[in-house]
Amino acid sequence: MNKSNHDKEILAENRKFQLERISLFSDAVFAIAITLLIIELKLPEMEDFSADAFLKALNSISYRFFGFLFSFFFIGMYWVIHHKIFYYIKEFNQKLLWLNIFMLLTIVMLPFTTGVAFEFMTFPDYPFMLYAINHILVGISLYCLWDFLGNSKNISVGLENPRFIKFKKARSLTVVLVFSIVIAMGFVSPFWSRISPILIFPFFLLIKKRFKDVIENK
Amino acid sequence: MNKSNHDKEILAENRKFQLERISLFSDAVFAIAITLLIIELKLPEMEDFSADAFLKALNSISYRFFGFLFSFFFIGMYWVIHHKIFYYIKEFNQKLLWLNIFMLLTIVMLPFTTGVAFEFMTFPDYPFMLYAINHILVGISLYCLWDFLGNSKNISVGLENPRFIKFKKARSLTVVLVFSIVIAMGFVSPFWSRISPILIFPFFLLIKKRFKDVIENK
Amino acid sequence: MNKSNHDKEILAENRKFQLERISLFSDAVFAIAITLLIIELKLPEMEDFSADAFLKALNSISYRFFGFLFSFFFIGMYWVIHHKIFYYIKEFNQKLLWLNIFMLLTIVMLPFTTGVAFEFMTFPDYPFMLYAINHILVGISLYCLWDFLGNSKNISVGLENPRFIKFKKARSLTVVLVFSIVIAMGFVSPFWSRISPILIFPFFLLIKKRFKDVIENK
Amino acid sequence: MNKSNHDKEILAENRKFQLERISLFSDAVFAIAITLLIIELKLPEMEDFSADAFLKALNSISYRFFGFLFSFFFIGMYWVIHHKIFYYIKEFNQKLLWLNIFMLLTIVMLPFTTGVAFEFMTFPDYPFMLYAINHILVGISLYCLWDFLGNSKNISVGLENPRFIKFKKARSLTVVLVFSIVIAMGFVSPFWSRISPILIFPFFLLIKKRFKDVIENK
Repeated sequence: MNKSNHDKEILAENRKFQLERISLFSDAVFAIAITLLIIELKLPEMEDFSADAFLKALNSISYRFFGFLFSFFFIGMYWVIHHKIFYYIKEFNQKLLWLNIFMLLTIVMLPFTTGVAFEFMTFPDYPFMLYAINHILVGISLYCLWDFLGNSKNISVGLENPRFIKFKKARSLTVVLVFSIVIAMGFVSPFWSRISPILIFPFFLLIKKRFKDVIENK
Repeated sequence: MNKSNHDKEILAENRKFQLERISLFSDAVFAIAITLLIIELKLPEMEDFSADAFLKALNSISYRFFGFLFSFFFIGMYWVIHHKIFYYIKEFNQKLLWLNIFMLLTIVMLPFTTGVAFEFMTFPDYPFMLYAINHILVGISLYCLWDFLGNSKNISVGLENPRFIKFKKARSLTVVLVFSIVIAMGFVSPFWSRISPILIFPFFLLIKKRFKDVIENK
Repeated sequence: MNKSNHDKEILAENRKFQLERISLFSDAVFAIAITLLIIELKLPEMEDFSADAFLKALNSISYRFFGFLFSFFFIGMYWVIHHKIFYYIKEFNQKLLWLNIFMLLTIVMLPFTTGVAFEFMTFPDYPFMLYAINHILVGISLYCLWDFLGNSKNISVGLENPRFIKFKKARSLTVVLVFSIVIAMGFVSPFWSRISPILIFPFFLLIKKRFKDVIENK
Repeated sequence: MNKSNHDKEILAENRKFQLERISLFSDAVFAIAITLLIIELKLPEMEDFSADAFLKALNSISYRFFGFLFSFFFIGMYWVIHHKIFYYIKEFNQKLLWLNIFMLLTIVMLPFTTGVAFEFMTFPDYPFMLYAINHILVGISLYCLWDFLGNSKNISVGLENPRFIKFKKARSLTVVLVFSIVIAMGFVSPFWSRISPILIFPFFLLIKKRFKDVIENK
């Protein structure tokens, strides 16, 4: 093999590794964001060192602990989706890099908005709305990524069926829809606002039913 | 090679990389959790800047430093187990992804519960019990992963011998058992509760002896 | 294959993985630096838990939030450049390792200087100048990396065209130039100093135009 | 290919990836440790927002900033050594895993001991001695790793020359020696104690000279 061909081979290999690096950089960002959630969790100062005072202190952060679990589940889910997205990518370009960085931006903000949402409660429930806006931004970035892949045949692979992209985009929009409901409810009642994210499960099931054909074809 | 075959090959490669990404994402989470332990370690304010005041300040966190070493050892051990688990995996599905995320959840909580357990001591010893509960959850998640692999011939590889899975499940349950003893002892004496995790060594040796045949077959 | 050849093959493979490890270590550092930015973002204590007090608290950190977005964009851009640099590398040596570590040093300082620049404002605008110095250091480290690759034919690949290296070096120097303007403006007006980083966009376009030939050849 | 052979091939590939995971997990720990150094760096509260007050505040942390650079350089160097070590590894076993975890333990403690050493100064200089002890532990862990590889022909590759292992062990012991001098000097003068780490450069050069033959053979 002559030098020029050897160089081309190395560049092709490097190119492939560059694609993997995007996933690995994203993985590291996801991993840090999901782990930073626990840093927010801190026991308040205790008056004395009795078992009762400890249980009281523990109880006082139970709501924040719930917020930790809540965001851990969602960041986990977003990672699973990111994981799926890159299954269908065979090449990358500048636009994909920056769409991915935008997605990571929305993920990185989650530990902050989680801390805010599960520490304060006001009426109207602005802290939780801020948290919902963050999730809406994640949903939008996921939508953009799927939309971009569906329209970029030179970058994606295995996405020939337009109904499959439609299915993925519908799922991303569900995140946007559910957290829009959360915002609307925030003006009515903090309680119902904070319960509404659970709507994501029936909505996901509905979409699964409607797009049964493409999931089974997969 | 025609286009469709070429695409299938890319997708197969991507699929393989997706499996590796699960390990790499987990590695990052483990690495952050094990490193966050040190953030909890902070020297208290010193009255003056004499050598004596410094030694006194250092001494006042010696117990927390021990907690750091303690959790570092255990997170290290859990990483080694996670490392072993993925040796036997050739494919993944949604359930494996979520079992793995559940395992990471239990790992991520360890820096928090470590901080709590090695800062406070009450009677009954609730802070250390909380820490023990965390380890029990890790043990359960490990058990679930081994159990899942043993029952999923299409995902696992090299796990034909049911006695080997039994061995791995027994080891996971040992973690659960030892930290259950820790909790029970917490109602009797904080001192003995905090000593009992050492039981993991004789228990692991016992299991090693009983399952000698499968380890040697490996 | 005899033992010695087999060993050589393993060492060659290890060597290749060693090169990948440099990227992956760098990715982890970039990922942590970009995520640490959010840790700086903390809501101030609120007087009461009314919605108004919350909006006021939120408003009080709006400038720091802008700083978070600002640095997130720049660290993202630097990562994209780092990503591109390693596309042209086929080997490594001690000098590359240390140039890379120097680059990471400049990246790791960004969360600190971001925090400083977007919390204080003095006249002359020293906090923002410190931030600008940090970006200048990043620019210099990028310049050094491109310069090193251009002069190391045994390490780089696909960089035969000297005009292409010139283009990359010109871009790195643009970062240095723009943030030098930021520093100069800091002695005139904090407002104009903080606006000037935007100059990077027209300057990058100008360079793109002048080096149109090498970009299209790529 | 029959099923059993196919399984063996997958297990062999997994085994190879398991080896890479050790490096990648270590990289993540190194990356976090090197980045955590900057978290310690915080500007003190300022009386007013004048440029002078800012410069004064900046000046007050200049020593800690030097400590940041100091530890960044050393962690960088230890990463480079770790990077080299794994070049010579073709297999792993439990002992290697735990030696590596021990090495990571010593690295993870560096952000803590850096913070202590560059915040306080007492006489005798205990804070800097604590920092020196940490470096001594790193040196010992490096020595153990090289020693282990030299004695494990089934795990290492390319380490046939015993003089080469001797060279690497001598370098590790230099770290131990230099920081032992640091400790001894701490009882004499904090100033000279804090200057002595610079001895690592002449000592490394001396060793390089004495082992010139093995380095050139490499």
